[in-house]
Amino acid sequence: MLRYLCAGESHGKGLVAIVEGMPSNIPIDINRINEDLKKRQQGYGRGNRMKIEKDKVEIITGVRDGKTLGTPLTIVIKNIDYKNWTNVMGIEKLENQQKKILEPRPGHGDLVGALKYNHKDIRNVIERTSARETAIRTAVGSIAKQLLSKFNIQIISHVLSIGEVKYKFTDKDIFKFKNLIEESCLRCIDTNVEKEMIDEINEAKRKGDSLGGSFEVIVKGVPVGLGSYSHFDRKLDGTLAQGIMSLQGIKAVEIGEGIDGITNPGSKFHDEIQYSIEKGYYRNTNMAGGIEAGVSNGENIIIKGHMKPIPTLTQPLKTVNMFTKEEKEAVVERSDNCAVPSASIVAEGICAFIIAKEMVDKFGGDSIEEMMLNYKSYMNYLRER
Amino acid sequence: MLRYLCAGESHGKGLVAIVEGMPSNIPIDINRINEDLKKRQQGYGRGNRMKIEKDKVEIITGVRDGKTLGTPLTIVIKNIDYKNWTNVMGIEKLENQQKKILEPRPGHGDLVGALKYNHKDIRNVIERTSARETAIRTAVGSIAKQLLSKFNIQIISHVLSIGEVKYKFTDKDIFKFKNLIEESCLRCIDTNVEKEMIDEINEAKRKGDSLGGSFEVIVKGVPVGLGSYSHFDRKLDGTLAQGIMSLQGIKAVEIGEGIDGITNPGSKFHDEIQYSIEKGYYRNTNMAGGIEAGVSNGENIIIKGHMKPIPTLTQPLKTVNMFTKEEKEAVVERSDNCAVPSASIVAEGICAFIIAKEMVDKFGGDSIEEMMLNYKSYMNYLRER
Amino acid sequence: MLRYLCAGESHGKGLVAIVEGMPSNIPIDINRINEDLKKRQQGYGRGNRMKIEKDKVEIITGVRDGKTLGTPLTIVIKNIDYKNWTNVMGIEKLENQQKKILEPRPGHGDLVGALKYNHKDIRNVIERTSARETAIRTAVGSIAKQLLSKFNIQIISHVLSIGEVKYKFTDKDIFKFKNLIEESCLRCIDTNVEKEMIDEINEAKRKGDSLGGSFEVIVKGVPVGLGSYSHFDRKLDGTLAQGIMSLQGIKAVEIGEGIDGITNPGSKFHDEIQYSIEKGYYRNTNMAGGIEAGVSNGENIIIKGHMKPIPTLTQPLKTVNMFTKEEKEAVVERSDNCAVPSASIVAEGICAFIIAKEMVDKFGGDSIEEMMLNYKSYMNYLRER
Amino acid sequence: MLRYLCAGESHGKGLVAIVEGMPSNIPIDINRINEDLKKRQQGYGRGNRMKIEKDKVEIITGVRDGKTLGTPLTIVIKNIDYKNWTNVMGIEKLENQQKKILEPRPGHGDLVGALKYNHKDIRNVIERTSARETAIRTAVGSIAKQLLSKFNIQIISHVLSIGEVKYKFTDKDIFKFKNLIEESCLRCIDTNVEKEMIDEINEAKRKGDSLGGSFEVIVKGVPVGLGSYSHFDRKLDGTLAQGIMSLQGIKAVEIGEGIDGITNPGSKFHDEIQYSIEKGYYRNTNMAGGIEAGVSNGENIIIKGHMKPIPTLTQPLKTVNMFTKEEKEAVVERSDNCAVPSASIVAEGICAFIIAKEMVDKFGGDSIEEMMLNYKSYMNYLRER
Repeated sequence: MLRYLCAGESHGKGLVAIVEGMPSNIPIDINRINEDLKKRQQGYGRGNRMKIEKDKVEIITGVRDGKTLGTPLTIVIKNIDYKNWTNVMGIEKLENQQKKILEPRPGHGDLVGALKYNHKDIRNVIERTSARETAIRTAVGSIAKQLLSKFNIQIISHVLSIGEVKYKFTDKDIFKFKNLIEESCLRCIDTNVEKEMIDEINEAKRKGDSLGGSFEVIVKGVPVGLGSYSHFDRKLDGTLAQGIMSLQGIKAVEIGEGIDGITNPGSKFHDEIQYSIEKGYYRNTNMAGGIEAGVSNGENIIIKGHMKPIPTLTQPLKTVNMFTKEEKEAVVERSDNCAVPSASIVAEGICAFIIAKEMVDKFGGDSIEEMMLNYKSYMNYLRER
Repeated sequence: MLRYLCAGESHGKGLVAIVEGMPSNIPIDINRINEDLKKRQQGYGRGNRMKIEKDKVEIITGVRDGKTLGTPLTIVIKNIDYKNWTNVMGIEKLENQQKKILEPRPGHGDLVGALKYNHKDIRNVIERTSARETAIRTAVGSIAKQLLSKFNIQIISHVLSIGEVKYKFTDKDIFKFKNLIEESCLRCIDTNVEKEMIDEINEAKRKGDSLGGSFEVIVKGVPVGLGSYSHFDRKLDGTLAQGIMSLQGIKAVEIGEGIDGITNPGSKFHDEIQYSIEKGYYRNTNMAGGIEAGVSNGENIIIKGHMKPIPTLTQPLKTVNMFTKEEKEAVVERSDNCAVPSASIVAEGICAFIIAKEMVDKFGGDSIEEMMLNYKSYMNYLRER
Repeated sequence: MLRYLCAGESHGKGLVAIVEGMPSNIPIDINRINEDLKKRQQGYGRGNRMKIEKDKVEIITGVRDGKTLGTPLTIVIKNIDYKNWTNVMGIEKLENQQKKILEPRPGHGDLVGALKYNHKDIRNVIERTSARETAIRTAVGSIAKQLLSKFNIQIISHVLSIGEVKYKFTDKDIFKFKNLIEESCLRCIDTNVEKEMIDEINEAKRKGDSLGGSFEVIVKGVPVGLGSYSHFDRKLDGTLAQGIMSLQGIKAVEIGEGIDGITNPGSKFHDEIQYSIEKGYYRNTNMAGGIEAGVSNGENIIIKGHMKPIPTLTQPLKTVNMFTKEEKEAVVERSDNCAVPSASIVAEGICAFIIAKEMVDKFGGDSIEEMMLNYKSYMNYLRER
Repeated sequence: MLRYLCAGESHGKGLVAIVEGMPSNIPIDINRINEDLKKRQQGYGRGNRMKIEKDKVEIITGVRDGKTLGTPLTIVIKNIDYKNWTNVMGIEKLENQQKKILEPRPGHGDLVGALKYNHKDIRNVIERTSARETAIRTAVGSIAKQLLSKFNIQIISHVLSIGEVKYKFTDKDIFKFKNLIEESCLRCIDTNVEKEMIDEINEAKRKGDSLGGSFEVIVKGVPVGLGSYSHFDRKLDGTLAQGIMSLQGIKAVEIGEGIDGITNPGSKFHDEIQYSIEKGYYRNTNMAGGIEAGVSNGENIIIKGHMKPIPTLTQPLKTVNMFTKEEKEAVVERSDNCAVPSASIVAEGICAFIIAKEMVDKFGGDSIEEMMLNYKSYMNYLRER
C-alpha cells in the first residue's frame, strides 16, 4: 500500500514528506521533481515570495544510485528564508517575547485553528494552513508520476477559468496541446482567453482584490479496473474528490462533464460502448470522465477543481481581535492575487499519487519489474476478453 | 475511531453493515432508522420495485435494552424478495446453468466490473453496483444521526434541481422548512418548482428517458473544530467530498457556494468575522459552507451533490455482446427514471456518519456520558475564548 | 487490501463478520468452515454449552453459485439458544427490569469493561469479552484458508502443553502427523503425553480448578517475501504476534524457537543458507520459524501461543460488589476448565487470515485467476535468482 | 489519531520520522530525546560504531517556541558519517560501479530482502534491515513519553537475562530502582547478576560469538480503560505485542507473568479484586501484567521481550553467493556481540508511543489543555464508580 505523511510550517525550516510503499528499482530523476516545483511557483498572479524562493527538493532516504530501494522515501524542501525567521519560528523556547497575531483573517483557517488547537498566537495556525504546504504534495506527486510513466500513464492540467473569464475545451486529445499549456503563464490553451484572464487579474490587482477560478486534470493511459465498486471507500471518484477537495481553496470538484452534464437526459449522457479488434472495448464519448461505478474504464480520467479567490486582500475584511474582542480590519500577509495555475499543478500531483496508489494495489509486486510483469499479464488478459 | 464495513447483493439475502466504535449507552430507536429507509424509497420518479419492497432494518448485535453496548453494531436489511431469486442468486453451487447477462449497459459499472473481476456473467457485477446498496448506508447514517442528536446536531437535505429545472434557495434557516421538504414528493421546498420538476419527470418518462439533478445537505449545530488542517487527509471538506462522490451517480460535489461562488472576487467571497458576547464568534454570511481550512467553523455545513441521469433507459443505448462481440442494444433492468430525492436522503446519512466520526475523534470517550462531558467542557472553553 | 470487522454478543442473536477485499472466483465450501467450527467446539476440558450448541455458518453476501464475487462476504453464526435469552438480551427496551450482574470476576474483563464503557450491569461486558467471539474469527480464518489452499499453503496447529505437562516436538514435518492431531481430543501428537494431559485436566476439574497451556501453529508453503522490513508495521512477525495475542487468554507469543532458542549463542542459533538447483535457496534448520527481518523466508512459519488458565472457576476468587462495595466471591458462569485445543484452532484461523492478507497485498489482482498468474510469475522469477 | 512513518538507511544521510496527531502545546525538551538516544547507544556488548557516532535529534517541523503546534512533527537523526559514504550511498546515479554484496548473512534479512525487492546488491537490503533504524523509533518514543509525563505515566525498562544468565525480579515497585538501572551498563538491577552477564558477554566475545537475552518494560500510571475488547484489533496486549515483535531480533513477547505464569492453575493465576475508598479498585497481585481482556486495568503494564543473539559473528556461518551459487562463509559487518540493553530502550519507546496513541484515542482533544480536562473528568468519574 502506497501512503505518505507530510509536514512543515510555511516559514519553518522546511517541508518534509515520507512516502512508504514504493516498489524498488524505479529510476528517480530529481530534476523532474524540481520542474514541477518550479511550475507550481509560476503563474501570472503570484506575488513576490514566489520570485525570491526557488524550491528545490532534496531526497534524504529511500533512493540509492538513482533508484528507489523499496524503503520509505524522505523528501525535503528547505525554506531558504528560514535563517531570517529563527527568532520567530525557532524550535526551542524563544528568547524574546513574540508579537502575537491576534486578528483572524476571514476566509483563512485562522479563527478555527486558534480555537481548535488552543493557540493564543494565530501565527501557529497560519504557518500550516498556508498553501506553502502544497509544495511538498507536488513533490510527492512528481515521484508518483515517475512510477506512472513506466506504465505510459500521462497526466496534464490546464486552467479553465479565472474569475468570470472561462472557456470550454472540446478537443478530445488535450495532450497535443501540452506545449501550449506549459508555455502559457496561466496554463491556458487559448491565447485569446489567456489575454482576457490576464486583464481580469490586472484589474483585480489594481483594486486590491483577488480571484479564483477553475482547472482540469486529465490522466491518460489508466488501465481499466482501478478503484472498486465493492466497497464505497474504494471508489476511485471518491478518493480523487477527497484529494482535490483537500487542496487549499478548493470548493467544488467535478468528474467528467460534471454539473454541466447532469442537465442532459439519460439518452444524451451515457457513453455508448464500442468494440474493435484493435482497440478492444472503447467509447466515442467520455461524459463519464473515465470512471464508471467508481472504477476506471480506460478512457481519460477527467477531474475539475474550482478554487475560491485567495482570501488575503489588500482591501481588508472585517474581523475581531481575539484578545480585546474589538472589531478590526484583517491584515494583509502576502500579495498573490490569483493562484489557479499553481493549484492545477498541485492537483496533478494529487491525482498522480492516487492513481499510483491504485496501481500498486491492483498490480502488487515489490519491485518495478515484478509490478510490470503483473501489469502486462493483465493487459494481455484484457485483450482476450 | 468510528468505522464501518457494509455488504450485500441487490437480489441476494440482504444488506448488512457492521459499525465499530460507537460509544456505549446511546439510545437507538429502530423506528427512526426505518423512517429514513422509507424516505429513501420514496420520491417521484421511483419505479415499481420501491413500491413492493418496504425496507426494514434488523439490529443483530451491539444493542441491548434499547442502548448501544460500545460493541460493534450489526444491522441487516433483508431482501424480502430473495425467496424468488434463490435459483439465480443462491450461495451454494446452482443446480441449473444460469442464463448469463452478456451485454454491458452504458453508464453502469457492467463492463468495467466484468473486466476487473473476471466475471463472465454481468449479473455478478450488477448485484453490487446497484444503488440498492445505499439502503444500508442510509441505515448506518441514521444510527449516526442518533449520536449527533445528543449534541443537538441536526441534518436535512433537499432537492435543488431535476434535469433543467432548478431553483436557488436563499433563506438562511432551512430547518424551518423541514415539514415542507418532508411532505414534498421531490424534497423540494418551492411547490411551484416542484410542479415543474414533476412535469419534467413525466415528460422524460413518456420518452422513455431519465433525469438527474442536484441536492443539498445542511448540517446545523456542528461545533467549531471538527476536521483538521494539520494533515491533508483529515480535512473535513475532503472527507465529505469523498463520501458524497462515492454515492452512485454523483459526478460533482460542492461545499458552500461552490462553483457559483468562485466567480466572485475575494472582496465579495469571504465571510467576515463578527463577535458578540451572546453568540461568541459568528459570521453574517456563509459562502464557505461552514468549513474553513478543512475545519468546521460553527456555521451550517453545506454540501451539494450533482447526480447524473439514471443510466437504465427504456430507449436503449448501443453496447457490445461480450461473448460474440456483436453490437447490441443495452437491456432495460428497472424503471426508475429519477432518483435525486432518494440520493439526497442517502447523502444525509453519509454526511451524518462522517460528522459523527469526527465528533468521536475530537471528543473521545467510550460512553456517551463521557463523550458528553468532554463536549461540554470544550463548549465552555469556546465561550471563554 | 483484505480486511474484516466482526461483531456479536455471546447470548445475542449471533456472531457476524464482513470480509472485504477477497478476490473473485474463489470456490467457497461451507462444509470446510463448519468443520473448523466443530473443531473449535471440541477438545477435552470443554463444558456443557459446547455439547449443546453446534455452530453452523451461514453466508449472507459475497458468494454466488459457490464462488466469491469480489464483493464483501458476510458470514453469520446464529446463536440457536437466543430464543431463551430474549428477555435478557433483547435489542429493544426490555419490559422487565433485569437482574444486574454487579460482581466482576477476576481475570475477566468484567471490571475494566464496566468502568471503561460506564456499564452498570456487567452482563453488558461479559457478552463481548467471552471467547464465544472467537467462533466468527475461526470462520473468517477458514475462508482465508480456502484462498491459501489455491496456493498450496497449508496450516496446522497442535497442543504443546497443558498445565505443567508439556512436550517438545522435534520432527521437521508436522504435516505427516495431521491425522493423529485431528483425532486427538487434545490436538496432541504424542498419545502418552495426551494421557498425562487428560489426567491433569481431570485432576484440576476435581478440584474445581482450571488449566492453561501452549499451542503451536505451523504454516507450510508460504512463498519467500511476505511481510516487509521496510516499515516496522509491515513486519510479518509483528502482525502475527498482534493476531495471536488478541486471542482471549493468550499471555505470550513466540516465533520459531522463541524463548528456548535465545539462550543459544549466535553460532548455534542462525539457520545457515544452502542452495541446490532443485530446491533453490533453503535451510536445514528453522530456528527462525520461517521469518527473517519480518519477511517470510520460505521455510515453515512457526508461531506459539501461551494461554492462561480459564478464569472462571468453581473455587471462586475474591471480588467486590460494584454497587455496595462489599467484598464478595466471584460467581461461576460456565464449566470449561481447559480450552487450549480450541484456542489452537482459532489461532490457525487468525494466522490464515494474516497470511492471506499478505498474499493479496503482494500479488494484487482482483480475481483468483489474476492473482494466480502474478503468483506464478513471481515463483518463476524466484527460480531464476 | 496518533500515527507515524519513519525512514532511513543505515549509512545514508540520516533517519527521519513524521509524527502526526500530537495535541498542541506540549512542551518538548530535545535533551530528553537525546538522553534516550544516548542510552540506546550504550550497553556492554556494543561495538565500535556506537562509540564514534553520538546520535542527536533535530526537530524540523511541528514545534515552535518549545511547544508542539498540533501539526506533524518531523525529527531527523543525521548520520555524521555519511560524508564518508557518498560514493556508496549517494542518492543520484553513482559514478563508479559499486562492489556488490552478494553473500547473504544467515539470520539477517539479506536473502529474503534481495529476493523480495529484486535487489542484485545486498547492500540495498542491509541498509534498512539494520537495527540502526531503531534510533528514530527511540526518538519518536521519547516524544511520546513527554506527552505521557503530563499524565504522570512513567515508563522504565531493564534487562532480565543475557545468554544463559537470568534472574527474576520480584519487588512490586521497580521504579524505586530507576537509578540502579540507569547506572548499570547492562540495565540490570542486581549487580551480582550483572557481573555474571558481563562475564558471559566477554566469554562469547572471546569466542567470536554473540548473545541474546530478555528485557522487561514496565509502564506505571496508565488509567483503567485503554485498549478495548470490543474489536480484536483494538486489544492493548495485541498492539503492544505487535510493537515489541517488530523490533529487530525479537522472537518472543510476554505480558505480565507470561509463560512462567501459565503453568499455574486458575486458582493461583488470577488477580483478586480489592476495593478501598482511598485507592478505588485495586489488586494485590499483577499476574495479568496490567491488561485484562485487552484493556488496561490500572496496575503496572508489564511486557517482556526476548531477543535472539545478534546474527553477525566473527565465526561466520555458511551461506551461498547469489551470483555464482557457490557455498561461502558469511561476512562480518560490525562487532556488537550483545544488544539487549539497547533493545530494552527501544522497546520503552515503542510502548510509550502505543500508550500515547491510546491516550489520544480515549481522551480526544486537540490541545494538551483540552485532553487534560477530559482526562481529569474521567478520573473523577472513576473515583465515583
